[in-house]
Amino acid sequence: MYSFTNDYSEGAHPRILKAMLEANLTQNTGYSLDTHTGHAIELIKKEICCHEADIHIIVGGTQTNLIAISAALRPFQAVISASTGHINVHETGAIEATGHKVLAMTAPDGRLTPALVQEALDFHTDEHMVQPKMVYISNSTEIGTQYTKTELEALSRFCRLHDLYLFMDGARMGAALTSPVNDLTLADIARLTDVFYIGGTKNGALFGEALVITREELKADFRFMIKQRGAMLAKGWLLGIQFEELFQNDLFYDMARHANAMASVLRDALTECGYSFAYDSMTNQLFPIFSDETIEKLAQHFTFNMDRRMDETHSAIRLVTSWATTEEGVREFVEFIRGLR
Amino acid sequence: MYSFTNDYSEGAHPRILKAMLEANLTQNTGYSLDTHTGHAIELIKKEICCHEADIHIIVGGTQTNLIAISAALRPFQAVISASTGHINVHETGAIEATGHKVLAMTAPDGRLTPALVQEALDFHTDEHMVQPKMVYISNSTEIGTQYTKTELEALSRFCRLHDLYLFMDGARMGAALTSPVNDLTLADIARLTDVFYIGGTKNGALFGEALVITREELKADFRFMIKQRGAMLAKGWLLGIQFEELFQNDLFYDMARHANAMASVLRDALTECGYSFAYDSMTNQLFPIFSDETIEKLAQHFTFNMDRRMDETHSAIRLVTSWATTEEGVREFVEFIRGLR
Amino acid sequence: MYSFTNDYSEGAHPRILKAMLEANLTQNTGYSLDTHTGHAIELIKKEICCHEADIHIIVGGTQTNLIAISAALRPFQAVISASTGHINVHETGAIEATGHKVLAMTAPDGRLTPALVQEALDFHTDEHMVQPKMVYISNSTEIGTQYTKTELEALSRFCRLHDLYLFMDGARMGAALTSPVNDLTLADIARLTDVFYIGGTKNGALFGEALVITREELKADFRFMIKQRGAMLAKGWLLGIQFEELFQNDLFYDMARHANAMASVLRDALTECGYSFAYDSMTNQLFPIFSDETIEKLAQHFTFNMDRRMDETHSAIRLVTSWATTEEGVREFVEFIRGLR
Amino acid sequence: MYSFTNDYSEGAHPRILKAMLEANLTQNTGYSLDTHTGHAIELIKKEICCHEADIHIIVGGTQTNLIAISAALRPFQAVISASTGHINVHETGAIEATGHKVLAMTAPDGRLTPALVQEALDFHTDEHMVQPKMVYISNSTEIGTQYTKTELEALSRFCRLHDLYLFMDGARMGAALTSPVNDLTLADIARLTDVFYIGGTKNGALFGEALVITREELKADFRFMIKQRGAMLAKGWLLGIQFEELFQNDLFYDMARHANAMASVLRDALTECGYSFAYDSMTNQLFPIFSDETIEKLAQHFTFNMDRRMDETHSAIRLVTSWATTEEGVREFVEFIRGLR
Repeated sequence: MYSFTNDYSEGAHPRILKAMLEANLTQNTGYSLDTHTGHAIELIKKEICCHEADIHIIVGGTQTNLIAISAALRPFQAVISASTGHINVHETGAIEATGHKVLAMTAPDGRLTPALVQEALDFHTDEHMVQPKMVYISNSTEIGTQYTKTELEALSRFCRLHDLYLFMDGARMGAALTSPVNDLTLADIARLTDVFYIGGTKNGALFGEALVITREELKADFRFMIKQRGAMLAKGWLLGIQFEELFQNDLFYDMARHANAMASVLRDALTECGYSFAYDSMTNQLFPIFSDETIEKLAQHFTFNMDRRMDETHSAIRLVTSWATTEEGVREFVEFIRGLR
Repeated sequence: MYSFTNDYSEGAHPRILKAMLEANLTQNTGYSLDTHTGHAIELIKKEICCHEADIHIIVGGTQTNLIAISAALRPFQAVISASTGHINVHETGAIEATGHKVLAMTAPDGRLTPALVQEALDFHTDEHMVQPKMVYISNSTEIGTQYTKTELEALSRFCRLHDLYLFMDGARMGAALTSPVNDLTLADIARLTDVFYIGGTKNGALFGEALVITREELKADFRFMIKQRGAMLAKGWLLGIQFEELFQNDLFYDMARHANAMASVLRDALTECGYSFAYDSMTNQLFPIFSDETIEKLAQHFTFNMDRRMDETHSAIRLVTSWATTEEGVREFVEFIRGLR
Repeated sequence: MYSFTNDYSEGAHPRILKAMLEANLTQNTGYSLDTHTGHAIELIKKEICCHEADIHIIVGGTQTNLIAISAALRPFQAVISASTGHINVHETGAIEATGHKVLAMTAPDGRLTPALVQEALDFHTDEHMVQPKMVYISNSTEIGTQYTKTELEALSRFCRLHDLYLFMDGARMGAALTSPVNDLTLADIARLTDVFYIGGTKNGALFGEALVITREELKADFRFMIKQRGAMLAKGWLLGIQFEELFQNDLFYDMARHANAMASVLRDALTECGYSFAYDSMTNQLFPIFSDETIEKLAQHFTFNMDRRMDETHSAIRLVTSWATTEEGVREFVEFIRGLR
Repeated sequence: MYSFTNDYSEGAHPRILKAMLEANLTQNTGYSLDTHTGHAIELIKKEICCHEADIHIIVGGTQTNLIAISAALRPFQAVISASTGHINVHETGAIEATGHKVLAMTAPDGRLTPALVQEALDFHTDEHMVQPKMVYISNSTEIGTQYTKTELEALSRFCRLHDLYLFMDGARMGAALTSPVNDLTLADIARLTDVFYIGGTKNGALFGEALVITREELKADFRFMIKQRGAMLAKGWLLGIQFEELFQNDLFYDMARHANAMASVLRDALTECGYSFAYDSMTNQLFPIFSDETIEKLAQHFTFNMDRRMDETHSAIRLVTSWATTEEGVREFVEFIRGLR
């Protein structure tokens, strides 16, 4: 059965594995102090047009989120998130486990706006309540939507005006940046946020998220935070090698573009067949709505996750494509859908 | 310059990489629910002769320590460790960051004894002090020493009598179990401890520590703990594949045996040349004592870590061998040492 | 200006102060191991008809909440609360600071129901999300409403069925139990919850909340929790003496009854004058809705807190009465309101 | 039986109680925003000759320690303490529960020195270890010793040079400042430390510790910390009234002077009878060494705590005097001791 369950069902792009193999018997300095990591960081700095950034490559996304957030906040400070935000729902309370409240705002399409952040600020007025200090957004979001440059600029301006840190979770940054409706670059993001990361795990690396810190006051002693949370990989060059490959010759963008292209084929076919979507996504996650009967049939040939119930007889499912999604897999799905009519 | 800095300077055994390559484009279930991990767990259960154990493979050692300890303790409970224990010194307060005090006992050779644990119990008598509840030991220890079966049996008996959990950090388990003076098996360790782990990172895997929980009450909901601490690897089968290889055809033991053999060559040569050691190690870490002058000469040809100052003109250094240490590298060191006479 | 700001604007009932004075120069055992505390606990046990309960008297409410909750939960477990719950809004993230997520459910009248708790359970399905384990309710609630016996029985049954702890914050327990519509007793509450507390601070003690633990598994080593959170009062007998007085000769109920009676006079006058209320309260907190203009006039003669804006020209304010509220103060307010017509 | 168990066996000085009684029915603003607290803070500022200090009065000592320390440190930072320090031994891991390691240094007389702090700094060299950032000292110490001006100046200079915060626990500040060998004033302490507190609980208040923050960067948003840890007393004026009395007409010093005078009588008599002491204390805690037989006899007439075993037949006990210790109680003890000869 072909799987559209997620974008981390396969390993890594062959070029990445090849590079890891070639370096296998070289003696490297541990804990990300090696030359591969140094080179990867240089490549990323160039890509984001920001040579003053501090960059740390960390194994996983939840880890990166909890480290970045707990490094930035004092004990009584909170992070504002869309209620659909990964940190609010899918990290088993990882942020709270570091002592901080997540202030969840209802954002119908998964994106925070200055108005929603203002609402959180208005509510928290004194020392009997937590103090909002960071705004957490995802791009693309957990439901496939994404920020435009105008939107991110507005949010950035608002955060700076109110002395809030703006943090972008980029676990699916590649999908956002190569979406047909995107008008942001990594350089824009580096300029408009205080800290963000570029996801490798969901875009063709074995694992690895490159955390970029541009705000000066968030940089200090960051490696202590990484080590304390158990996230300093002994063989850190494995992370460095992967990001060297991702940011050489556009591999990062090429893989994401492929994932989006595969999603587009699915989206077009579904639309053509008259299906609607729970969320409006132009990235690699689609949320088509089917009748329970159709879902049952689909589940006999494909694997995917349920998203949520829409009415008594219909639910949205989640289809995810990736760098590794094959044209055959997509064609099979499209033909199956067409055959249902 | 040849490096004796640590046992994680190279990547992984070629057989491990080969297996990862072969599985690269297969679609796997995420988060360690895949068949490779299932198979690896079966292999380990067989090796430890304990089919009721719960086994979780986790990326790194500090991560594994902090998860296992914070999962077992109530907020006011503490873990007893030798003062040289990894959790006490080299984890940036990772255990304290989960809320728990580490009670450090001075153990000259890095090993805890019932008498040392008793001392901690005697001191902590009421609710104004933390409550000791877990005993943390390492095998081999951070200074290369190891537990005999008799010693571990005594400690295990003592812990059960006093309702203390016994946790063994096995980051260097391979080195301990293949040391010439070892009389323990993994089955003994599974029987005598409540929770322990088998280290992959320092014994020829890219990364990965297999945590084995034998005590019933420590098993519940453990995957929640892993996820909350950011330690649930999306592509968890990467861990599974590595431990499949480690526990097929004795690769785990063979690699550790090689590391110990290389250390033996160094130890014999050093002894023959009249050098003494800061600690008595029969595993892959050696702590020879040299004059400052000799250390300076060595440092021009080899890399290694300083351990501690012994007197005004002498220090102990740390030499570590691994599965990847070459006979050439060792020979070069031996010849250099002999040439100093 | 007479204050209706809260129920802790004055000190303590004179009988309580008298008892404290009388004991002032006696040498007492510290840390709540004294005879006054012992006696107070006996009186409470008798009142709740439960001699197996463990009872600890703690200085303040936020303290009691954070200790009771963090003592009961494992790191990945969460507590369900109405979104208006004190722990969710007015404790500066005290629960999150102990590592636990508060799952806030929208409950229009501040009370949780089995259906609302079920909703939280349905959403949290696996180890990628926190595990709901405790249900937190307040009686009376933060908005003056209260639980009936039928409602509490239903919630209790539901919690036991789903192995959830039921915790009642009784900071305003007196107001709830002496409300004209109440049909619960402390004995009922002891029977239907797992842990609850009886508030002294807001009902005529200088300070003090008596935490009652009836669930066996929540009792163990509780004094360690109290001490660790900095809540073990050196001169603990001060707490004991106050609860001795509260539970001798019905002082606890008499004071709460007075507070409710004073609120009734206000409620009747406001209703008679045609004002409506933001919440339906029969206890000592009232939330009348006034025009901005009226509020401005009131604020020149009385102090009170704003609650929330109802529309463009009206807001709800909060009026709180207490054991110490004088008939003169109430009469003055009533006359002022009547004079506005 | 007369008790020398501690300095918090009785209530409060009658003048303090009288002031509380007089204010009992006044309506006060809650949460320490009242005029009594304001006045107390002014009195303290005058006493310490520092009008820029931020002052917060908090119920208890462990609470004050954990709030002050966790407010100052980032997650990976640690506090250095003498191994006998209250935070290291007698607070049930309260500091670790906020996430921070206590680095315990062996200080034979309970006092830290620049050399001991340097030792801690030397050991903690990189991000694999915690980062020492605060130095915690007590005056008088847990074993009755105290700092001279020269010593405190040296420690202060050292801390500023190494960018370490210096925090003085003054639970027994009164005893230190009125000891015959003292040459420090509160103004000196305000000048030489970054944050310290003046203990009320152990010097004739019902409860209350006045925390003084002089270092600018430690002041921000401190009330959020107090509230989050459950330490913001609803009826905060109770704290204010007590410190008003303590710092009006020298009551604070007079009570401490009495405690020390009573200890002097005991010390002189014990010395005269040939007994020696485990620690050299000129404050209100004495640690005389007796044979087990003598201790048994003493225990039939007086209550006190055991300190530690000195040899097979002798132990040190702890005798504590207070503002409330009576001359009769002391005379009785002296006569008993003399009668043993």
